Amino acid sequence: MSAAHTDVEEVTQANTAFYEALEQGDFEALSTLWLTPTDLGVDEEYHDPADTGVISCVHPGWPVLTGRGEVLRSYALIMANTDYIQFFLTDVHVSVTGDTALVTCTENILSGGPAPEAGAELGPLVGQLVIATNVFRRTSDGWKLWSHHASQVLAENSEDEDDDSPA
Amino acid sequence: MSAAHTDVEEVTQANTAFYEALEQGDFEALSTLWLTPTDLGVDEEYHDPADTGVISCVHPGWPVLTGRGEVLRSYALIMANTDYIQFFLTDVHVSVTGDTALVTCTENILSGGPAPEAGAELGPLVGQLVIATNVFRRTSDGWKLWSHHASQVLAENSEDEDDDSPA
Repeated sequence: MSAAHTDVEEVTQANTAFYEALEQGDFEALSTLWLTPTDLGVDEEYHDPADTGVISCVHPGWPVLTGRGEVLRSYALIMANTDYIQFFLTDVHVSVTGDTALVTCTENILSGGPAPEAGAELGPLVGQLVIATNVFRRTSDGWKLWSHHASQVLAENSEDEDDDSPA
Repeated sequence: MSAAHTDVEEVTQANTAFYEALEQGDFEALSTLWLTPTDLGVDEEYHDPADTGVISCVHPGWPVLTGRGEVLRSYALIMANTDYIQFFLTDVHVSVTGDTALVTCTENILSGGPAPEAGAELGPLVGQLVIATNVFRRTSDGWKLWSHHASQVLAENSEDEDDDSPA
């Protein structure tokens, strides 16, 4: 297998591992999958003007979260409020350039919150169609997430439609 | 100025140039700002399994657009349907790692469509709060856009709120 094929396969696996950690509510696994500046050899004590390896995350409809503190706290909250979540990934596209990989995919999500009353097994299940752009960085410990931006698809957009949404 | 400071400044300028091209409806400038595989020395005739330098773009509420054809066509449509658009960028954050830069920013947008009736100057102005993650790649011709993902902020999310939006 060529190096390019291997890269694409490894990135695809890292992307799958990210969603599996969410499905399993595995906070430790999730924390390990997100990049740290030390993964890139940056001394955490050093004030780095380029903010090398500083992560960011946008959940659907949310503002930007920046840095491991904010990002991981948001996942702890989401996990605490989600009893069941499953991702069916479609349209996974990988573009690798040097040590960075860009993944776009459609997250077909089925999720349920905590049971609304004692005795019930789950809250009502909700289906969502979400689009994600995930940026991974190559490290000595494998590909790690540098950025995740997810948003809901509000309307089907066919190419012959006249759509005037801004950038 | 250190190399890190220079990188951050150059990336910030490339990010500003992207929004200026949109404000001015300058399709040629916009096309030049988006990455091409040839910018990275990839032969366009070669079937590249890693899709090196292949761009992607998500407008608010839209599905993913992949490749220069789809992405640039969407901007031609948007420009054709937008008589006036202005971006006030806030919360611009730049993280540079090697030859890749990640920019997050808030796009405070004011826009107007074509005049609904002859004689009117502009359609009604609409304000929008949009969050963007822009990924730039260093090339011999400056920093170029590899990915743009934009989404609307649907609700304010303060840290002490209990929010259960999924990933």
